[in-house]
Amino acid sequence: MRRIRLTVAYDGTNYVGWQVQPNGVSIEEILNREISRMLKEKVTVIGASRTDSGVHARGNVCVFDTESRIPGDKFKFAINESLPPDIVIQESEEVPVTYHPRKVRSIKTYEYKILNRTLPDPLERLDSYFFYYPLDVEKMRKASEVLLGEHDFRSFCNIHASVKTTVRRILSLDIDKAGDMITVRIVGNGFLYNQVRIIVGTLVKIGCGLWPVEKMEEALKACDRSAAGPTAPAKGLTLISIVEEESGAADDDNEE
Amino acid sequence: MRRIRLTVAYDGTNYVGWQVQPNGVSIEEILNREISRMLKEKVTVIGASRTDSGVHARGNVCVFDTESRIPGDKFKFAINESLPPDIVIQESEEVPVTYHPRKVRSIKTYEYKILNRTLPDPLERLDSYFFYYPLDVEKMRKASEVLLGEHDFRSFCNIHASVKTTVRRILSLDIDKAGDMITVRIVGNGFLYNQVRIIVGTLVKIGCGLWPVEKMEEALKACDRSAAGPTAPAKGLTLISIVEEESGAADDDNEE
Repeated sequence: MRRIRLTVAYDGTNYVGWQVQPNGVSIEEILNREISRMLKEKVTVIGASRTDSGVHARGNVCVFDTESRIPGDKFKFAINESLPPDIVIQESEEVPVTYHPRKVRSIKTYEYKILNRTLPDPLERLDSYFFYYPLDVEKMRKASEVLLGEHDFRSFCNIHASVKTTVRRILSLDIDKAGDMITVRIVGNGFLYNQVRIIVGTLVKIGCGLWPVEKMEEALKACDRSAAGPTAPAKGLTLISIVEEESGAADDDNEE
Repeated sequence: MRRIRLTVAYDGTNYVGWQVQPNGVSIEEILNREISRMLKEKVTVIGASRTDSGVHARGNVCVFDTESRIPGDKFKFAINESLPPDIVIQESEEVPVTYHPRKVRSIKTYEYKILNRTLPDPLERLDSYFFYYPLDVEKMRKASEVLLGEHDFRSFCNIHASVKTTVRRILSLDIDKAGDMITVRIVGNGFLYNQVRIIVGTLVKIGCGLWPVEKMEEALKACDRSAAGPTAPAKGLTLISIVEEESGAADDDNEE
C-alpha cells in the first residue's frame, strides 16, 4: 500500500465545503468518486483543512492510500483528467504511510479579499466580499497589530466545544490595497473555526468607522465571541497554502 | 423622451455575447427584459460594442430611450436591483437624444489575460486563457512593436465583408507579467472583428517559440488572415473601457 499526498485548488462557490454533507456536493466527495473511478479501487481522501461551504483554496492538502503503481508526481495529471474545472490538483507525491495531514505541525496562510467600491464587479464576484462603505486601511492595519503573536482567540471562534485550547499563534497579518481590492493575508500555526472570517468581520467594523481601533484589543481580551465582529462571508476566503514543519504533532482541531 | 447611457460590466461566461442570438441568452436580452420590467415600458438598448460569446466587459456602453423621470445617475441602482450577479451597471447618465454609442469617436481599451503555468487555477478559470508552454514575454513585447500606429489589419480580422476599411490605429500595446498571469493591454480607436484575439493568438505562437519574432511583421504585411496566428479563446478577453472623444463620427463597423 502507498500513501499519496495531493495539493488541491478549488473554487468553493458550488460546493458545501470540503467535508461530505447531506445537503449538497462536497470537494471530498468529488475527489473520492473520481479518484476511485480512475484507479478502479475504493479510495477515501483525508483532508488537512475542512474548509466551509463557499471557501476557496489554492493549496489545501489531502492524502489517500492506493495499490496503484502510478509514480507519485503523475497522479495529478491522471486525476485532473476527470475533475470538473473548479477543482484542480496542483501537486502530487508519495509520502510515508505514517504521514497524516492533520497530525503534522504546519504553517497555514489564508487570504481574505474585500472589494471596496460603490458597485459590485461581476468579474470579482466569486472570491471576494463586496463592501460598499469606504474602509480605512490604515485603521485596519493599526487594529490588527494586537493580534500578532500567541493569544487566546476565544472571541474569534464560532465553535470551540471540540478543541483542547483556543490559544493560537498568528505569525503575520498584512493588509494590502491594490485598486479597490483589499487583501488581508494571515499566516499562523493553526486557526480556530471561523477565526480568519471573524477577524476580518471585526476589521471591517473598524475600517468603516463603526468601531474605534481599540475595539480589537478589547475584543481579544474579552475571551467572549459576542465582543468581536460578525463572521465575514465565506466567499472572500481562500486557503493559500499549508507548509509543513519538520517535526512535532499538531492538535487535530476543528479548524476552518 | 430622454436618452440614458449605461456603462455595463459583465462576466460573459454564461452568455452568447452582447447581441440577441437564437441559441442562448445574451446580455442585451437580459438588459431589455429587466429595464422594461422595471420601468413598465418597452425598452431596447443599443450597445457600443457587440462583444462575442464568452467575452467579458468592465466598461461596455449602451443607451436606451425612456419616458421615466428617474434622475440619470439613479438608473444604475434601480436597474441593478433586478439584474443577475454577473451583470452590473457601473454608471448611468442622461445624454442628448442625438447621441448614438456606435456613431461617436472613441478610444477602446481591451485586456487579454493568459495564465501561463503548468496547471490551471480554478479561481482564474473564468476570465483567463490557460496556456501550458512557457511564454517568453520579452519576445512577445518585441513582436508587438510593429503593430503600433496605423496599419491595414486585414490579417487580424475574421470577418471583414461589412467594413469599409481594415485600416485601424493601435495607440498602445503593453504586456505585463504578474506571477504567472500575463496581461496584454491594447488601446485603439476601434478594432476589427476578433482583432485583439488574433493579435494575442499570434503573440502566443511567438512567445512559445513556434514562430520567430519577425513573423508578426510578415503577418501584418501579408494582409491575409492565414498569415496570422489562431484566434485566442474568448474567455481571456475583457473590454475595459470606451472613452469618447470630443467630436467626429466613427465608422459603425462590425467590431468585437
